[in-house]
Amino acid sequence: MPASIDFYFDFSSPYGYLASTQIDALAAKHGRTVTWHPFLLGVAFKTTGQRPLPEQPIRGPYHVRDFDRSARLLGVPFKMPEPFPFPSLAACRAFYWLDDRDEPKAKALAKALYHAAFGEGRDVRAVDAVAAIAKPLGIDPAALKAACDDPGIKDKLRLAVDAAISRGVFGSPFIIVDKEPFWGHDRLDQIDRWLATGGW
Amino acid sequence: MPASIDFYFDFSSPYGYLASTQIDALAAKHGRTVTWHPFLLGVAFKTTGQRPLPEQPIRGPYHVRDFDRSARLLGVPFKMPEPFPFPSLAACRAFYWLDDRDEPKAKALAKALYHAAFGEGRDVRAVDAVAAIAKPLGIDPAALKAACDDPGIKDKLRLAVDAAISRGVFGSPFIIVDKEPFWGHDRLDQIDRWLATGGW
Repeated sequence: MPASIDFYFDFSSPYGYLASTQIDALAAKHGRTVTWHPFLLGVAFKTTGQRPLPEQPIRGPYHVRDFDRSARLLGVPFKMPEPFPFPSLAACRAFYWLDDRDEPKAKALAKALYHAAFGEGRDVRAVDAVAAIAKPLGIDPAALKAACDDPGIKDKLRLAVDAAISRGVFGSPFIIVDKEPFWGHDRLDQIDRWLATGGW
Repeated sequence: MPASIDFYFDFSSPYGYLASTQIDALAAKHGRTVTWHPFLLGVAFKTTGQRPLPEQPIRGPYHVRDFDRSARLLGVPFKMPEPFPFPSLAACRAFYWLDDRDEPKAKALAKALYHAAFGEGRDVRAVDAVAAIAKPLGIDPAALKAACDDPGIKDKLRLAVDAAISRGVFGSPFIIVDKEPFWGHDRLDQIDRWLATGGW
């Protein structure tokens, strides 16, 4: 059975959101599955020296325009949240807690969080906000909130972030197909071709 | 007659080279022409706070791989020059000198310089190297060398760089279609669609 595709993303990344609406269907087209890996882009930035886009003159305004234009092209809803970027610790911890127990549900939660943050522009920073989004998926809010305070879950996230950076992940989305790394939602066409041909 | 497409690039930019092999044909497909604008990305970096890719941990090695992979996908020759990135003052000045006199020939020189630098991995920094590449195109080497020392041509390049940054150009390639800005050779598909539809 071919290896799963690794999908790295930060919940505060608009391009990660765009990729999240496409990646499972793209993989399925080629008989592949996707393993989702939320991480903290801000930690990677400490290694690479990058700064969040809104802090970058000229580049920041361009990207706001590009987020929206790229979303329109894909036909997915898009609304920038405030603040942006935002810390996504609670979202990540809730994901990794659930991922141990029920991977499809963890993925459903990630999709719901992304939709809330960038499809509806909602504030998903607080653990209460994450729990409220999780509840309709049949996830117990109290258990989720407890998990976000669990030192074991906090460690799990730290290890996941370190593992991502060790694999060379420096942006969001970052997708690894059979050891071949692709950065950016604008590489989905290349990934499609790579999966079809095994490389070029 | 529809407006020309503005193509901004740095001669030291691999992605600019990749776009340079495609942009005229892409525009022609839609009955459009392209105005080429070499500029100095390093000056834009002073505004945006970016650094050259080789200086960026993790990001640098990824991009070397991506340059090569993207070139293979397009089927164009690719070889990294040493050093990289490199100062392209002579190439830019030669271009703007020629552009005043013979725009098609200036564009032919730009293509020859890009091919030498990234198709063959040659060092095109020195004015002598630029003149040697220009000579087979029927461009007088002595006149080119004199132009590169001409204060009027130096000023012309400075004004071109300032004008690019004033228009929001921060990367290479950067393409403006009817006031709509697109950054990156990976936006050529979007540009194709924009030209076909007038936007979305």
